[in-house]
Amino acid sequence: MDCFLETSLQNQNQSAYNKFMDLKTYFNPASIAIIGVSENPKKVGYLVAKNCIDQGYKGELYFINPKFDTLLGKKVYKSAKDIGKPVDLVVLAVPADISLGMMDELGSMGVKNILLYAAGFRETSPEGAAKELELIAKCKKYGITLLGPNCLGFVNTINGANLTFLKYPAPKGNIGLVSQSGALGSLMVDYLVGHKNFGFSYFISLGNKTIMDESDCLEFLSQDPDTKVIAMYLEDVKDGERFKKTLKQVTMKKPVIILKSGSTEEGSKAAVSHTGSMMGNDAVYSAVFSQCGAIRAGEFYEFMSLLKLFTYERVPTSKDILILSNAGGIGVLLTDELIRNQLSLVTITESAKQEIIQQMQGTKISFHNPIDLLGDASAFHYQAAIASTLKEKNIGAVIILLTPQANTEIEETTKVIEDAQERFVKPIYPVFMGEKSVGRSHFLFEEKKIASFSSYDFLPKAIAKILTYRAWIEAKQEKEEKGQLQETLQKLTLEEGIDGIFDKWKGQPFMDLDASMQVLKLAGVKTTRLRLAKSIDEAKQIVTEIGYPLVAKIASEKVTHKTEVKGIITNVENEQDLLRAWDKLLKIGDIGGVYLQKMLSGYELIIGAKRDRIFGVILMAGLGGIYAELLKETANFIYPIDEQEFTVGIKKTKLYAFVKGYRNLEKLDLSKLYNIVNRVGYLLARYPQISSIDINPLMVTHEGAYAVDSRIIL
Amino acid sequence: MDCFLETSLQNQNQSAYNKFMDLKTYFNPASIAIIGVSENPKKVGYLVAKNCIDQGYKGELYFINPKFDTLLGKKVYKSAKDIGKPVDLVVLAVPADISLGMMDELGSMGVKNILLYAAGFRETSPEGAAKELELIAKCKKYGITLLGPNCLGFVNTINGANLTFLKYPAPKGNIGLVSQSGALGSLMVDYLVGHKNFGFSYFISLGNKTIMDESDCLEFLSQDPDTKVIAMYLEDVKDGERFKKTLKQVTMKKPVIILKSGSTEEGSKAAVSHTGSMMGNDAVYSAVFSQCGAIRAGEFYEFMSLLKLFTYERVPTSKDILILSNAGGIGVLLTDELIRNQLSLVTITESAKQEIIQQMQGTKISFHNPIDLLGDASAFHYQAAIASTLKEKNIGAVIILLTPQANTEIEETTKVIEDAQERFVKPIYPVFMGEKSVGRSHFLFEEKKIASFSSYDFLPKAIAKILTYRAWIEAKQEKEEKGQLQETLQKLTLEEGIDGIFDKWKGQPFMDLDASMQVLKLAGVKTTRLRLAKSIDEAKQIVTEIGYPLVAKIASEKVTHKTEVKGIITNVENEQDLLRAWDKLLKIGDIGGVYLQKMLSGYELIIGAKRDRIFGVILMAGLGGIYAELLKETANFIYPIDEQEFTVGIKKTKLYAFVKGYRNLEKLDLSKLYNIVNRVGYLLARYPQISSIDINPLMVTHEGAYAVDSRIIL
Repeated sequence: MDCFLETSLQNQNQSAYNKFMDLKTYFNPASIAIIGVSENPKKVGYLVAKNCIDQGYKGELYFINPKFDTLLGKKVYKSAKDIGKPVDLVVLAVPADISLGMMDELGSMGVKNILLYAAGFRETSPEGAAKELELIAKCKKYGITLLGPNCLGFVNTINGANLTFLKYPAPKGNIGLVSQSGALGSLMVDYLVGHKNFGFSYFISLGNKTIMDESDCLEFLSQDPDTKVIAMYLEDVKDGERFKKTLKQVTMKKPVIILKSGSTEEGSKAAVSHTGSMMGNDAVYSAVFSQCGAIRAGEFYEFMSLLKLFTYERVPTSKDILILSNAGGIGVLLTDELIRNQLSLVTITESAKQEIIQQMQGTKISFHNPIDLLGDASAFHYQAAIASTLKEKNIGAVIILLTPQANTEIEETTKVIEDAQERFVKPIYPVFMGEKSVGRSHFLFEEKKIASFSSYDFLPKAIAKILTYRAWIEAKQEKEEKGQLQETLQKLTLEEGIDGIFDKWKGQPFMDLDASMQVLKLAGVKTTRLRLAKSIDEAKQIVTEIGYPLVAKIASEKVTHKTEVKGIITNVENEQDLLRAWDKLLKIGDIGGVYLQKMLSGYELIIGAKRDRIFGVILMAGLGGIYAELLKETANFIYPIDEQEFTVGIKKTKLYAFVKGYRNLEKLDLSKLYNIVNRVGYLLARYPQISSIDINPLMVTHEGAYAVDSRIIL
Repeated sequence: MDCFLETSLQNQNQSAYNKFMDLKTYFNPASIAIIGVSENPKKVGYLVAKNCIDQGYKGELYFINPKFDTLLGKKVYKSAKDIGKPVDLVVLAVPADISLGMMDELGSMGVKNILLYAAGFRETSPEGAAKELELIAKCKKYGITLLGPNCLGFVNTINGANLTFLKYPAPKGNIGLVSQSGALGSLMVDYLVGHKNFGFSYFISLGNKTIMDESDCLEFLSQDPDTKVIAMYLEDVKDGERFKKTLKQVTMKKPVIILKSGSTEEGSKAAVSHTGSMMGNDAVYSAVFSQCGAIRAGEFYEFMSLLKLFTYERVPTSKDILILSNAGGIGVLLTDELIRNQLSLVTITESAKQEIIQQMQGTKISFHNPIDLLGDASAFHYQAAIASTLKEKNIGAVIILLTPQANTEIEETTKVIEDAQERFVKPIYPVFMGEKSVGRSHFLFEEKKIASFSSYDFLPKAIAKILTYRAWIEAKQEKEEKGQLQETLQKLTLEEGIDGIFDKWKGQPFMDLDASMQVLKLAGVKTTRLRLAKSIDEAKQIVTEIGYPLVAKIASEKVTHKTEVKGIITNVENEQDLLRAWDKLLKIGDIGGVYLQKMLSGYELIIGAKRDRIFGVILMAGLGGIYAELLKETANFIYPIDEQEFTVGIKKTKLYAFVKGYRNLEKLDLSKLYNIVNRVGYLLARYPQISSIDINPLMVTHEGAYAVDSRIIL
């Protein structure tokens, strides 16, 4: 979506405005006036009026259009004033210009809540953007809370206020959906309308987020007692700082599942920093979501699977899964998926095995988990196996796989599972595959609020993500109990002299290597000392002090990627090498001399931090050195971050192998690494003139971790 | 599945037996006798008889059971002899022991084709395995072609021979399914039975593959004119060499889509070779499938999506995709998936844009591909956009995304797409999302053989895999034209002396470093010279010849992983370092001295080869050095392989960055790398006593690629 307003919108002081909002009244209005009702069944003004009636709105509903007297059996007023009393919400089902033209009148009448559907604002053209700025000004003048423009409206299924032009009444349930795409809401309704016990408390279509945005809706839904799980579809976030803060609080109370379309734009190849080129927009969003405890779904049906698990409150308690199946091969395919998602299978104890053997009355089955009840498994076989295995300890969830075969008793097995779930506190997920024979079972399971699936595809991924969320909550709660939950970290002590360096480099696009290394050193990061040689004699003199082997680097204020111009020569081992290196580097031209550094041996990491336009300081730690950009094996974080969260992020990457001990390399001390990353982040937080910092490589040696090369972009 | 027969079965000379088989008669029998028909509707003997009638079998059908006179309105014979004339196929719907007991009688009667359902053979117990050996002996004695035991039978939908106990008659179509799991066949029938133009030519349930195996069925289906696409579900492969050869031939004629359940067993951590621990069983299967041109599906619905594309012959012609959508956000989610699968979006030309603007009669749309027709897009808008964009050049496929919104004209848009596909040669894939509103459209699309989907989830992956298959065929055809298609590569010349080394190490579990390096050198692989020092004085003497920096390694016949015992010391730069290294290595104990090697600089690769029990020599090339096992960034191949196929495999890995040029490192010469990998493979092919070879690292320097360390396991 083009955005002509970006800068102007950022200058609006949004948070000062939020105090005006009363979203409880906005989304639960006792009275609604729809301006622009229509008799044309294809027009928004008709669809909205009809939906609100069809959904069974319980408050007072007023229709307004000077052209009509009655519509859908209700009186139609000529104007909002004719109603003669205040209404909680005014709905503008009229075009952009007319809507804008009515703002003064409505504002003067004391209207506080407006819903505006029309497109034609900043999403279309610079003129539209100007109209949007005018709209903002009017809202501020009158203290109006606005949803839209360019939106589908909202539904409250509890009081029946369906102010959307959706095709069907919205199915009732406990999902609060906030969507930046109206189409996604329509799609979900179309999908859910034939299901049972699977629907919305609220569906809010955000549109242009001119006044009300995703954080406002998150806050509202987190306090709403009818909403058990919050679903979001996002394309961007308006106010990054507020979103982070709100999301972190909300996820402690309710799960938040986010579907976000990434940007297909590749990071600029000419990016001056590694961090910039390695950490795209999408990676930043992922870091924000995971650090704030939200669950990011990858695809639409994964999103729906996650919602189903939460809507029925059937969430796994541990990663140990029990599988019962009447199709061995498909049980193995499912097992592969579970293992790929770091889940595991429960080990069946000998006593359970013996019990099953007795119960099975002679029918042979395969006892490895997945337990293969074989193709002719009857409902009785399923029942016997369930009865004997559900007693096993440490079950996190049970998956019961059924494929329709000649003698498969589908309805009876459905009943067996329903009964078992009634007695069993852990979740049982029936995966009844196929189409013709199993449709009715899925419907029956929904009636009993059992989360069943017609394919195992998205289930393992969903289980794994829910377990990550549980662990996040538990860690947070533990910290809360210990009183360790601080929103801002304590200030680090920097050595004196940093301010002077920044003053000196004011106005420059980036600091040179020497200055970058000095800043890091003063910020408490160990660095390998750089020695500048302006002549070969100076170089020889330096060698007598630091010894071979050396690394020689060009000293230039102009070159940002030294390796690309072959400006770094490693393994300088003797005077002959030194002379050769000197000649090569001088040929690159326009250099201020050659830096000499003692060459270290160990393994290389990359540490980075950049300032994101929306979310502030973002941190990165990953495998480094020459392969850094090739492998992109990194973890991203938003600053500030505490050590426990940092550890969780690193565990997801291959860096973790170094923590556990890899080959004869020095074990990676995560506390020390956290300390370095944190200090780099703090530098960006403290000095707003820094745009990004790279340390590449950070060399981990037996003597400690040293920044060997670095760059500070201003 | 437990396999009690493994070794015995391997000793059977299978290929000698194949000449007996006449699968055309087996699967198209003009007459069938079912022994063991039953009146109990739950028994196989009833279900098979009924299915064969219901499917409309066109040949002569005889029922046999001494207990009955008639069944399902047909005469029942007392015994096979009573039929009085030979039948093409005898079906044994009786238990294992009775089946086995009838083999002599049937064999003596001259029966050549038998189908045996019963379980109770090698899948159950050692006694069952003994029965299976007896069964094999009988088949050999009488020259009987057998399908099963422990199987679901087969269906031929063309002549109506449904000899399965499936729940429904099998839907007719052009998919030839060969499945090692009966459940998968049942599942597919249950799924397809409500669809149109989507079904089987043949479904063959393999069972224990005692006589007839997957290669036999592949060969048969490749020659069958009614089969357009071959689908396989495999758990293992019986005869690796024959499978590779057959598959390679068949995929040139017809696409083969394989669903294979991997083994969840992790490779043994104590594996003595890197290759062994880095290349699991599943990776070997993947290498076999891709090198033989088969398409491996990851999940069940991906499998079904691939089959749908081929069954309707709607395959993409290039990676350039055009997207039309009435839901911008979902268009972007789809685009993300396409990009992730290395596909790309067609660029819309200015002339097409202008044409759309005119056609749209004032409705504004977003012109970036994905072209967003906005939420209120009518069938007319879809039609106009299709008409203007289908003229664009280089379209590989068109995806038309539709989400049901208030004014969406679903039926009309369905018609618009049907008409467009009739005129347009490239495939159009409608992705109509949702449930309630779109079901009928999918049915209509199937009637017109248009491959539609209710979600975009598996489509990008499927398109990408089909394009890989097309490229594979084209490369093969090109080579065929040039006469370069050789099944075996020409023998390489090895220098003299290798045989002597192998003789010397006969009976040992592995060669030491020196011997391993010598073998490689004689096989034409450049190696870094090893110098053995038995005393520190000898070491100092060697240094005067090769100079610093050095690598020092323990010389021990017992240690296989030198780095794990810290038996390798790099960066030995001066005499002080040398003394320190000497002391350290000696402390490891029981060593035969210290190897000294000139230390090279460059980047490290790993090259490996191992002998697989089923598929023979398997090759590996990947990122090497200390990170090799951490990163597992490798490509696997079956030997022999030609250079073009090798290049295709390397392109899929991050190694390819070195080929294109990465930083200031030496560009990777794929011809030279191929040469090394090929020589390593040849060694295993020539010397059966080798179990595996590792070169780790192979150091790529500006002077060439050198094996720095290696190990040959015997």
